This record gives sequence, structure tokens and C-alpha cells, in this order.
Amino acid sequence: MYFLHYQYIYNLIFKLKTMNYKPKNRLEPQEYVEGIIKGDRVILSRAITIIESNLESDKLLAKNIIQSILPKSGNSIRIGVTGVPGVGKSTFIEAFGMHLIEQGKKVAILSIDPSSQRSKGSILGDKTRMETLGQQEEAYIRPSASGDTLGGVANKTGETMLLCEAAGYDVILIETVGVGQSETAVHGMTDFFLLLMLAGAGDELQGIKKGIMEMADMVVINKADGDNITMSKMAKTQYQNALHIFPLAESGWSPVVSTASAIKNEGIDTVWNTVLEYKQMVDENGYFEKNRNTQQIQWMYNNINEALKQLFYNSENISEKLVALEKDIVTSKISPVKAAENIIEVFKRSF
Amino acid sequence: MYFLHYQYIYNLIFKLKTMNYKPKNRLEPQEYVEGIIKGDRVILSRAITIIESNLESDKLLAKNIIQSILPKSGNSIRIGVTGVPGVGKSTFIEAFGMHLIEQGKKVAILSIDPSSQRSKGSILGDKTRMETLGQQEEAYIRPSASGDTLGGVANKTGETMLLCEAAGYDVILIETVGVGQSETAVHGMTDFFLLLMLAGAGDELQGIKKGIMEMADMVVINKADGDNITMSKMAKTQYQNALHIFPLAESGWSPVVSTASAIKNEGIDTVWNTVLEYKQMVDENGYFEKNRNTQQIQWMYNNINEALKQLFYNSENISEKLVALEKDIVTSKISPVKAAENIIEVFKRSF
Repeated sequence: MYFLHYQYIYNLIFKLKTMNYKPKNRLEPQEYVEGIIKGDRVILSRAITIIESNLESDKLLAKNIIQSILPKSGNSIRIGVTGVPGVGKSTFIEAFGMHLIEQGKKVAILSIDPSSQRSKGSILGDKTRMETLGQQEEAYIRPSASGDTLGGVANKTGETMLLCEAAGYDVILIETVGVGQSETAVHGMTDFFLLLMLAGAGDELQGIKKGIMEMADMVVINKADGDNITMSKMAKTQYQNALHIFPLAESGWSPVVSTASAIKNEGIDTVWNTVLEYKQMVDENGYFEKNRNTQQIQWMYNNINEALKQLFYNSENISEKLVALEKDIVTSKISPVKAAENIIEVFKRSF
Repeated sequence: MYFLHYQYIYNLIFKLKTMNYKPKNRLEPQEYVEGIIKGDRVILSRAITIIESNLESDKLLAKNIIQSILPKSGNSIRIGVTGVPGVGKSTFIEAFGMHLIEQGKKVAILSIDPSSQRSKGSILGDKTRMETLGQQEEAYIRPSASGDTLGGVANKTGETMLLCEAAGYDVILIETVGVGQSETAVHGMTDFFLLLMLAGAGDELQGIKKGIMEMADMVVINKADGDNITMSKMAKTQYQNALHIFPLAESGWSPVVSTASAIKNEGIDTVWNTVLEYKQMVDENGYFEKNRNTQQIQWMYNNINEALKQLFYNSENISEKLVALEKDIVTSKISPVKAAENIIEVFKRSF
């Protein structure tokens, strides 16, 4: 009882603090906007920090910044890159990023690591990753915001992407670990979805969640070097056959499978050429714009749904009631339909 | 203006009517429950009609019936059967159903046809379907409830399934046309998901939506007869290779591919034997019960989410505001995140 009381006061103080606390070093919205549009990396980073911030004053500031840069956003190709740990994602992105820079592109790399949501320590934060790429003026690397919810992370990554576009980055790579749910979110905010795989995997394959494979516009068998080349070529054929049996995506694009060795810088150009081919096709058939519009609107609806859920789950007594209802459902004491009706009544009465 | 006024009055009268209208021929809840448990098909049909009814008095009655039969439900194997029109679904189900009856089973066939939601006339309502099966005492065939929403249809089909189980049906087949969204709903209420395909399809394949294939526990290449046999065997190998490359489902089951000719009654036993093998495996590894529990609980959450959405979308002015916001989003006038916040504010103020 004492403890609860203490907790309550503590939370209240914390809430008041975060509501009123306004960091001293913040600029005016217009200063951020101008800095971003000029391509000032320091200002860009500071603006992203504001987007990631949970302070009320920062949330307002973030909204103003986003609103102003919005017309300058959208001019990039957005690529989702995923694959299980061990597939060589960092090495691939380093090689791919360097290739893009050679083509005269500016590239931003944003990473979403859902595991960091829990552990608060991210494997993607590893300083030794992408050493060469990290030193390039034309590359901007930013690990994910650790948010409380996947929806929160997706919002922040999505808005960060818009800022990067306004700052003139032509290619945005959004990197995830292909084991969680963030892939669907990333697929919903990118133009092209790239899946990295290994040859002769079997066991490794099981790390990839169902449903990720079918989102892929391209599968790259990485580490196709040395003794691995034959196996990789076989894997390529297998994946090609497999993917061609599956229904075409709405884009009309047939997924491409290729091999690469990021460490030897082989096959990297093929990946970029494939992206360009895809872009040309979907520009011509109108899917590119259609998909972007759909994604933007879907983004709003995702947020609406998320907000509705929060209203519900934050409503008084709902959590305990749900636990009880789940138990009653499993023991056939109440039907799921009736259980839902009961709890919705409780929710309605809470207004 | 006149028209709107008239419409309003009309709707009001209709609403009042349906609220108070109570059909004369209804029995007491206990009479339905006893009839169902005795396996009385007439009572079962009448109870399903009540479940499908939108009358307020029937909704209450339905709830009472469900609540009472709940402990008697669950003792069946629930099989989802899907495939595009032309794949020979009716013929397959007829042959499969007859085979099950020969094995001493009682089988209920429920059909969900999303197209009937719009046209109000269902292709699945065709009287010539499943003529032999329809005449068996051990078979019960019921086309879907046409509901206003997919969630509504899923509820009604789910509850109909519970009644059929209480009436002693050992195998429940839930049939859908593999082109829409109802497959996910059906996958969420069945133990085993069966996908019917054709050999040498190519074009036909495109009728199957992405994501349906990966739900399949078994793919049956139907119409493997006559000139089609060689092609069907080739297709079988192709699907086998394709499906084995994809990650295993949580059940640990590796999808089985087989050929069948429903019209010649060939390969039908293989399908049922595969279902039995699956059942044995998931009984042993605990997935069967775990999945059933998860499905039941998920059913409640689906209803909660649906109810929350209805609260939101039925709230005043929301629809018009959404249309305006969608337009502003596409023209980069507002960010999706801010748009969602705005409309949620409108919603909150409506209480």
C-alpha cells in the first residue's frame, strides 16, 4: 500500500515534470527547417532527436518541423532491407551504400531493432558497423528510436525518413532484423523490399518469419563467395522457382533473386540495377505513386487504430477484466463474442 | 432535402420496428439447446437462422443459445477449404464429404462467400451443388450468413460452427472463395487449412491472393485426371519445392502437396489421411490445444477492435473529415501522424 502510494506520487511528479520541462538548447522551428533543407547534418540530427523525444514540448516542436518540411519530402527511393542476424546485413549495407555514393547518390540508413525496445541496448548500435560508410559526407546513419510500441517506432522512423528526404537524401535504407513484426511496418513505408538470405540455410531459414518472404521484391543470397558459390547458385535457382509459383504482387513486379558477396563487393551493382528497373516499371504503370498515396493514408489509419486501442486499454479496469475474460473463454464459460460485448459495455460506461 | 427527410423517418421507423419486432415462431432457448444436442437438424437450422438474424430480440436469444451449448462445442476437427472459382471446390467437397461419411463421420459444410455481401445473391447458393452429399443424413450444408461486415460474417460462421459441433458433427468444413479477405478469418477459426489449386495454372494462380498460400497446411492439385495427370504431377513437385523453402508454421507442420481428382474420387483418402496425421502431430506437440485457445481469445480481440472501429466511424462527422484528411495527406498538406491526432481529438470531443 505504501509502495503504491509512493509510486503514484512519483509518477505524478514525473508526469508534471515531463509536461512542463522544456530543454534549453532547442532552436526555433524555422531554424530546424532551414537547416534541414540546406542539408546541415548537425541540425538534421538535432531535429531527429526532437522527433524521438517524448517530452510534450518537443512533440509540439516536432509537429511544426514535420509540417513545414512535408512539401520537401518524398523525393527518394525508399528501400527496406531485412535478414536474420548473421546474414551479413551491415556488410551488405556498407557495400551497397558505398556503391550508391559512387553513383552520385546521397544515402540515409535508418535502423529499426525491435529487440532494443526491451533490452534498451541495441545490437545495431554497435560502433564498429559500417565504418567506411559512416565516414562519408554523402551518408547519414541513424539507429532507430527506441519506442514503447511498434506503432511508435514506425511513426518515428517514418517521420525521420521524411526529414532525411527534405535534407536531400536520394536513397533511404530502412534496416530491420527479419525476426519480428517491424518488417510489415517497414514494408508499409518503403517502395522496395529487399530480403537477404544465406545459401544452404535450412536452419537459418527458420529465423525468418512467415510472411516476410512474400513481401520481398528481391531476394539476395549473400556470402556467395569461396566454397559457398555453388551452394549460393543452387539456392538462387530454388528461390527463383519458389517465388515464381507464388502470386504476383499488386505492383506487377516479379521478385528477382540474385547472389552477392558484400565482403568482396560482388553483385552489389545488380541489386541497385534491379531497384532502378523496378522503379522504372512502377513509375510507368502508375503503381509507384498509387502505392505512396496508399501508404500515406494507411499511415493515418494505423495511427487512428493505435489511438483507439490506447483509449480502450488505458481505460479503467480494462486490463484486469480482459485477463478474467480470457480465462473464461478458454474454459468455455463465455463465448468470445459475448466477452467482447461485455467489455465494450464497460468501456462505454467509462466515459 | 425532402428525400433526406423521408429517408430519415423511414430509417427511424425501420429501426423501431426491428428493435421491438419479435417473430412469433421462436422457441424457448432451452428447446433450441436440447434440440441441437439431440442432433435435430430442423432445430439446428432454426437456431442458425436466429444467429444470422439482425433482430434485437433474436440477438439476445442467440446469445442465450450459444452460452448454453458452449460446453458441448469444440469436439470436431475444423478444416478451412479454399481455392479460386473453377478449381472444382464443390466437387471436391462433395467427394471429401462422402469419404468422411464412409469413415463414420458426421460432416458440416459452412460456406462463406464474400461476394454475396454485395450482390445479396450467392454463387454458393446454387442448388445443384453437392447433390449427393446434400441428401445424406450425416451431412449438414449451410451457406454463409450474408453480413454487412467481414467481422460480422466471421462471427456468425464461428457461432454456427459451435452449434454444429454441439449437434455432433465431427468434421466442420468452412469453404471460402480464395480471392478475398475471408481466408484470413477462416484460417483464424480452423485447425487445418486446405488450398485447392490447378496444374499449369499461371494465370489462374493470379486469382489467389498473396498470403493465402502461406496459410496452407496442405495444397491439393485438383483435376489431376486425363490429359492433366502429367501436368498435375509436375505442379505437385513445384509446389513441394516452393513450400519447403518457406519457413515452417508455428505448428511445426511442413505443408503437404498432393494431387486429386474429385470427379474420379481419386486422392481424396490422401487428403483425409493427411488431416489425421496433422491432428496426431499437433495433439502430441500441444499445438492443437494452444492454437484453439489462441484462436478463441483472438476472436474476442477481433470483436473488440471491430467494436472500437464502429464507435469511431459511427461518430458524428468522422466520415467527411476522413475524406478531407486523406486528400490533404496525399497533397502533403498534413502529415499522416498529425491527421490521425486531429481526428482522434474530434472523436474524443464527441463523447
